[in-house]
Amino acid sequence: MIGVFDSGVGGLTVVKEIKKILPDAPIIYFGDTARLPYGNKSQETIQKFSSEIAEFLKKKGCRTIVIACNSASALAADYLREIYPDLKIYDVVSSGAEAAVEATKNKKIGVIGTTATINSSVYKKKISELDPEIEVFTKACPLFVHLVEENWIKRPETRKIARTYLRELKLNKIDTLLLGCTHYPLLEKIISGVMGRRTKVIASGEKLAKELEKTDLETGFPSEDEYFVSDLTPHFEKLAGKILGKRVKILKIEI
Amino acid sequence: MIGVFDSGVGGLTVVKEIKKILPDAPIIYFGDTARLPYGNKSQETIQKFSSEIAEFLKKKGCRTIVIACNSASALAADYLREIYPDLKIYDVVSSGAEAAVEATKNKKIGVIGTTATINSSVYKKKISELDPEIEVFTKACPLFVHLVEENWIKRPETRKIARTYLRELKLNKIDTLLLGCTHYPLLEKIISGVMGRRTKVIASGEKLAKELEKTDLETGFPSEDEYFVSDLTPHFEKLAGKILGKRVKILKIEI
Repeated sequence: MIGVFDSGVGGLTVVKEIKKILPDAPIIYFGDTARLPYGNKSQETIQKFSSEIAEFLKKKGCRTIVIACNSASALAADYLREIYPDLKIYDVVSSGAEAAVEATKNKKIGVIGTTATINSSVYKKKISELDPEIEVFTKACPLFVHLVEENWIKRPETRKIARTYLRELKLNKIDTLLLGCTHYPLLEKIISGVMGRRTKVIASGEKLAKELEKTDLETGFPSEDEYFVSDLTPHFEKLAGKILGKRVKILKIEI
Repeated sequence: MIGVFDSGVGGLTVVKEIKKILPDAPIIYFGDTARLPYGNKSQETIQKFSSEIAEFLKKKGCRTIVIACNSASALAADYLREIYPDLKIYDVVSSGAEAAVEATKNKKIGVIGTTATINSSVYKKKISELDPEIEVFTKACPLFVHLVEENWIKRPETRKIARTYLRELKLNKIDTLLLGCTHYPLLEKIISGVMGRRTKVIASGEKLAKELEKTDLETGFPSEDEYFVSDLTPHFEKLAGKILGKRVKILKIEI
């Protein structure tokens, strides 16, 4: 079983990529909707929430855990690896950094994400470890999550905000823009439009799914995928359906 | 002691109004920043969070509690009155509805707020109880909270979004617009600008403070005001200072 978690619905964009490459891998998803968003919370709080969720997924039988939330990947991935040495832990930040390093040619990468993710400098560190010659330009775009939550994914207001947020990155002549937040793939068209044809816009989900494919996942499970959240609203169900391209049964639980 | 709570920093706009009228009343504030925002969460979850906070404020010696969060006022005020019959509980929805009814002349009131507040129809119900002839027009403006959190309170992007959100309310020829979210007073200039001179824009804080003034608050307390949050970031401290017009000591606690 692969346990995937996020602060909310955004991690389903990662589930979608995993399902493309590993359609039969059984997934247990947890979205911490009662406490979302994580992006503007402190490291201590994000570590506490993440370990509560990892404990839940472990009890459900997961031996592999995917942190499909950039804020939690940035601030709690190493912490989880330390307290759960028996679990295989993948995170979107490591995968995203690798994908961006493979994609860039002019060695100028842009990274956008929530305030917590960008302030942590985690992408700069990871990318520098992989190739110290690469220049990394970052920009926090906190409103993007809320624009997606509002389903304003094709609106002129969103395009105007994207232009404001991305102005500096365009001036820096990056050739690769990494979407450092799992909500952002839903704004890919607007972001690509603003950045122009010369910039590749990439998300971390595909790379992460390919890494999972290489590992010896337990197979032969007859189980169905399961979706859990800490708070359930009709809005969440609708957005989940939109991302996954199908309706799924979502259960609310307390962890 | 007056206990004031909100999902985050917005309730400090209510504290500011209370302090104008009752400068010596000692206040204990709690902002549930680890779990904000409440505006897109379910009634059950908001009731659970609100009763945990009321319990904390009661233990700190508060006999009067002000719910300075519209979502919690809308979805948990009656619930708290039921489980805490010994506490005096004030809420921004009741005060805001009264203030709007007193202000309107053409009996057309607009109310804006978070999705949870607007979907609850609580303002429509309260205003109809006070004057069944009044027409109430509502509009959820969920991005406003995030624009305030971003400190985009004078930006053209915010004005553009405000124009989109408020278009219908303008067409309805309301003469009074009630800000049904404690973050919104920070956007008052933009909102008033979009609505035009003929519409009075009002918040609930002032009315609530006047109601508190009429009650027999315990006095003679030598205590200092205390500010607590469930998660503390530098961003929160900055925004709190901006609202209150002075730096205050904020402590992080688990409740």
